[in-house]
Parts: sequence; structure tokens; C-alpha cells
Amino acid sequence: MDAKTINDMLPFVLKRENVARYREGRLEIGDRRKYPFEKTFHICEDVEGVARAVEEMVTQGGGPAVAAAYALAMAARQAAALPAEKALARLKEAKTRLVNTRPTNTAMALWLEELQDIAEKALEEGEDAEAALLASIESRRDRDYEAYYRRARFGADLMQDRDGILTMCFAETSFLLALALAKQDGKRIQVFVPETRPYLQGARLTAPSIQEIGIPVTLIGDSMPAYLMSQGKIQKYFTAADLITLDGHVVNKIGTFQLAIAAHHHGIPYFAFMWGADPGHPDRDSIRIEERDQGEMRSCRDVATTLDSIPAYYPAFDITPPYLVSGIITAKGIFSPYDLHRHFE
Amino acid sequence: MDAKTINDMLPFVLKRENVARYREGRLEIGDRRKYPFEKTFHICEDVEGVARAVEEMVTQGGGPAVAAAYALAMAARQAAALPAEKALARLKEAKTRLVNTRPTNTAMALWLEELQDIAEKALEEGEDAEAALLASIESRRDRDYEAYYRRARFGADLMQDRDGILTMCFAETSFLLALALAKQDGKRIQVFVPETRPYLQGARLTAPSIQEIGIPVTLIGDSMPAYLMSQGKIQKYFTAADLITLDGHVVNKIGTFQLAIAAHHHGIPYFAFMWGADPGHPDRDSIRIEERDQGEMRSCRDVATTLDSIPAYYPAFDITPPYLVSGIITAKGIFSPYDLHRHFE
Repeated sequence: MDAKTINDMLPFVLKRENVARYREGRLEIGDRRKYPFEKTFHICEDVEGVARAVEEMVTQGGGPAVAAAYALAMAARQAAALPAEKALARLKEAKTRLVNTRPTNTAMALWLEELQDIAEKALEEGEDAEAALLASIESRRDRDYEAYYRRARFGADLMQDRDGILTMCFAETSFLLALALAKQDGKRIQVFVPETRPYLQGARLTAPSIQEIGIPVTLIGDSMPAYLMSQGKIQKYFTAADLITLDGHVVNKIGTFQLAIAAHHHGIPYFAFMWGADPGHPDRDSIRIEERDQGEMRSCRDVATTLDSIPAYYPAFDITPPYLVSGIITAKGIFSPYDLHRHFE
Repeated sequence: MDAKTINDMLPFVLKRENVARYREGRLEIGDRRKYPFEKTFHICEDVEGVARAVEEMVTQGGGPAVAAAYALAMAARQAAALPAEKALARLKEAKTRLVNTRPTNTAMALWLEELQDIAEKALEEGEDAEAALLASIESRRDRDYEAYYRRARFGADLMQDRDGILTMCFAETSFLLALALAKQDGKRIQVFVPETRPYLQGARLTAPSIQEIGIPVTLIGDSMPAYLMSQGKIQKYFTAADLITLDGHVVNKIGTFQLAIAAHHHGIPYFAFMWGADPGHPDRDSIRIEERDQGEMRSCRDVATTLDSIPAYYPAFDITPPYLVSGIITAKGIFSPYDLHRHFE
């Protein structure tokens, strides 16, 4: 399937040009904080602007890596007049700032590392570092969308006619494309989307995106999936994964684990789409779970839900062990979580 | 323990005079919609006012039954000048209106039936029906608080020093009193409270109430308990129950079941406080789960969380089967969910 056809099948927020678009040294990031109420872009003029946008959740999922990559091109453009050594120092500084925006996003860190090598080579050879970076970024994005398609194809083939499908948070391009492909294959699918408190990715991103591609969707509370399972409404559970360890632990948005337990309890298979590959994380002990500001747990869309004096806890991710995972969907096929090392061979 | 000591141990919303207070024909209901941001009372001048207050969730948990009982006294007062037969007709009308505010609250319906009999007897004997009703209501409330205390004592004895305790929704007087008693016994307890979307009873009622009685509390999202369990932070799980069937199925706020599965998965016991007894519901099939307005699932404290066009589903309760329940805490002791019939012998 060609790139344009794939892009046309995707909902607004996931279309390539809406994730982030680089225009003459400016970056326009699709503002996922305002979606679905507004379809607007957040404009960044420099690396610090992009770093803050990532920290402030302007984009999420695969978006931060794309935005950070373009930010390096931005840094290269702004350092173009400097001697190579100074320009490289600026790029390294930019990279460190960007990596620190999402300490657990190792795929992003690896990509920025690669891009820095490309910029370094260009600078050493007296070439245009910005152009070299942009060429590499666009080619990487081409490959990413090809990989999304391959994963989506495997995912769609797991879905059966009349399946009720549960997801969590915003499972991004592979999942949405899988739904679109399943629909194209004539399968009647119904998707149940937990709202995903506190940040409401399910309510704000997933449910409107699924509705946009013409698939029946129902918004539910994060505490409701087990009850729907007991009613026989759910046949399969799919999520993305921020990270999967080499020994098959799935790190994803908080709540993924609780629903995997409920699915297991009801004999419902759970599949995770693998985004990026990370042999640098061999096991559970190598994972540090990010804790976000507890104030976010005391409010909802900036409206207080309780008193400021109430202590709260907001771990952003959780870890689902491999015995709860039925399959890891990769661009190379569906792997057992106990067999992931083969993916890297 | 005497009634005043018990009342003093309770947080604001659960103190007897703050649930609802009857003053010369007026009813002041503690407004749980505004708590904890405001500690105000909703004033009702007649039966219709009370019925609407109950429908509009001014009070909840054990509150609606108390408010409805006082509303009957109010009806008796307003009908005092009428002939006995007409007064009784007014009371019957009032009772029907009040029962219809919460069709699933069978304990409330039974109580109102009893009160109507008392009023009828008073009218027949030419006595003051309002006074007869108030005497009966106060004596019933005395017995309720004694039963709260007995359940709380059993609950507190299940708690151990340094326990991390999970709850769901607002487990009301028995649970709060159990925590207060455990504290009095020198046990250091930490409570984790899921916010309980969509209506946020956990964030608005439970967490502030626990903080008020001086016990460490942490507010979390509804999707987080399983992760906390995997971290070893939770030793026991306690909830109230809207209804328990004779064969041990616990009907409670949506989410209770999902957390019971997670607790079971982690080897954490789950105890439910039984409020009222209902031999009229023999089994799971006798339960009708109330579905509330789906619009409530698309907003949070009246702020939209997604587009109006997104279909949503809001079952208000779920059903936890007896194999996930470690014990039912009653005023007569802790029963196995498989042995509840003995409670009624």
C-alpha cells in the first residue's frame, strides 16, 4: 500500500503532516491538548520551544520523537553560521535538552543519537547539517509509516468480524490503521475506549479518531472494562507500548496492566503493538516509571476535582508482565513475549 | 461506645446531623455535590423538594433513605389539619413519589413502608403522626449508628498495623468508622482512594473525609490500583455494597469488580461492608444494573472531556461474584459470601 493511501486512511491527528511539520526553521506541532475541540498547531521557533512543547504534552505517543528530531534540524539551521566545532556543541546541548523531556522514551534518545552523528558527519565535511538532518528525518518517517502499515496488517488479521475491541490510552497509528484495514476487509468491529484519566487521551484522541475513520466507538470509564468483559462485549484487547523489555514486559500508559489482568481473568487475549525496539532494556528492573505532577490527579481539564490539600500519586506508566501478553505485534510479525530476542536477530 | 463518641469520630459529611436534619417541618440535607469545596445544606420545604434533591444527587449512600424518611414526617405535618383519611392519602402519595426517586434502593422502600404503617396507626388513634414518625426515625437512626459501629469494629479488627488499604467510591460510615477505630487502636494505616469517575465520589467525598479524621490518604486514578498492588503498597481492599445477593454477589459502584479481580490476582483479600440486608435478591439474575445518562461520561464536573457526538456508556454499578470476595462484614460478624443465608436466620 503506498504512502498516500495509508495517510488518507488515518484520522486527522495521525496524518503525517499533522503530527509535526517543519517549515523553514519553524516547527508546527499538531496540538493534541486542544484536539478534538480545536484542530490547531503549536508553533515552535527554537529547541527550547520544542522541548517545552513536548514537556507540556502538546504532542504525545510517536509525536515527541518526531518533534525532537525536527528540533535538531532547527538547531543546525540556527548554528549554520558558527564554526563546525561550536555548531556541534550546540547540537549536543540541544540533544541533551530534548532527551531530558522524556527520560523513559529510549527510542527517541536512540534516534536523536543517530541524527547527531549525521549532523556531525555533515559538519565535518562542510555540508549543510540542516539539509542532511531533514533528508534523514523524512526517510526515517517513510520507513516508520511502512512499519506502521506492516504492524497494522498483522493487527487487522487478528481482528474478526463482530469483535468488540478494548484499547487503552491512544494506541496511535498502528492500531488506528489496523482498525481501518479491518474495516476495509469487511469486518464489523466495535471499539470500547476508556477515557484514560487523568489526561483523557482516550476521550480526547482515541474515541474521536476512531469515530473519524467510521468505526463504531463507545467511550467508557477506566473502571468499566471488566464489567463489559463479564457481559461478553469484549473479545480482544489491543494497546500500544511505550517500551517492551527484551524479556517481554510491556511498559505502557498507567491502567494497561489493570486491564490486562481483567482480560486474562476473562480469557480475552491481549496484544501490544511494539513501537521501536529496545534491546537496551533487558528486563523489568531496567524500567524507571515516570511520576508526573500529583496536581494533575486533583483536577480534570483544569477544573479541581478535590481539595488542594489531598495528597495524590500519578505514576504515568505501568508494567504488564509477559504471562498476561498474548502477542507482540512488530513490523516483522507477531512474536510471543517470551521470544522477543528473535526480533533483534 | 456511646452515640456521641461515635458521632465525634466521624468526618463532617457523615456526622448524623450533617446527613440530614429536620427542623420544624424543614429538611436541611448536607449537600454532597458541593462538598468538599463548600460545606452547605440544601433546604427542602416539602416532599417534592426532597424527592428532587435525592434525584439530583444532593445526597447519596445512606443519605437518600434518611432524607426520604424525614420527608414523610414533613408530609404528615403539612397534612395535620386534614381528616385522617385524606392525610393518609397524602402520605401514600408522598411515599410513592419518594420510592420512585431510587427504584433500586429496596432498603429505602422497605423503611418507607414501615413508616407509613406507623403514621397510619397514629392517625387512626388520633395522635400526632409527625411526632410518631420522628420518634421512629430517630430510634431507627440510633440503631443504624449502633450497627455502623458493630460493622466498623469487625472491619477495624481486620486491619493490621502498616496496612495499605484500597477502597472504591465512598464506602460510608462503617468504613470511615473502621479506619477511625483502627487508628484509635494504634494501627498506622495508609488509604489509597481511586477518584471514582465519572462522579468523583472518591476524590470529593472519600479522600477529604479520610484526611479529616487524620489518616494518611492518597488520591489515585481508577486505573492505578493494580500497579500499586504490584508495588506491594496495598494489603487489603474494602468497599461498601449497594446490595449483596443471598448467594454472595456484591453489587457496588462500577469499578469495584475490576479492582476485586486485580486484588485476587495479587493475593489481596477483598471485604465488603453490607448495608442493609436483602433476601429479596437471591442471585445475580435478580439484579438490574442502572444505566445513567451517557452525557455524564463525556464530561467531568460539567466540563466537556470529548465531543458531544461520541457515544458513551455508563453502567452505574457492577457485580463482583463471591469467589472474589473474602468476607462480608455485617453487624453480626464477618460472613463468607457463600454463607450469607445464615445472616438472616
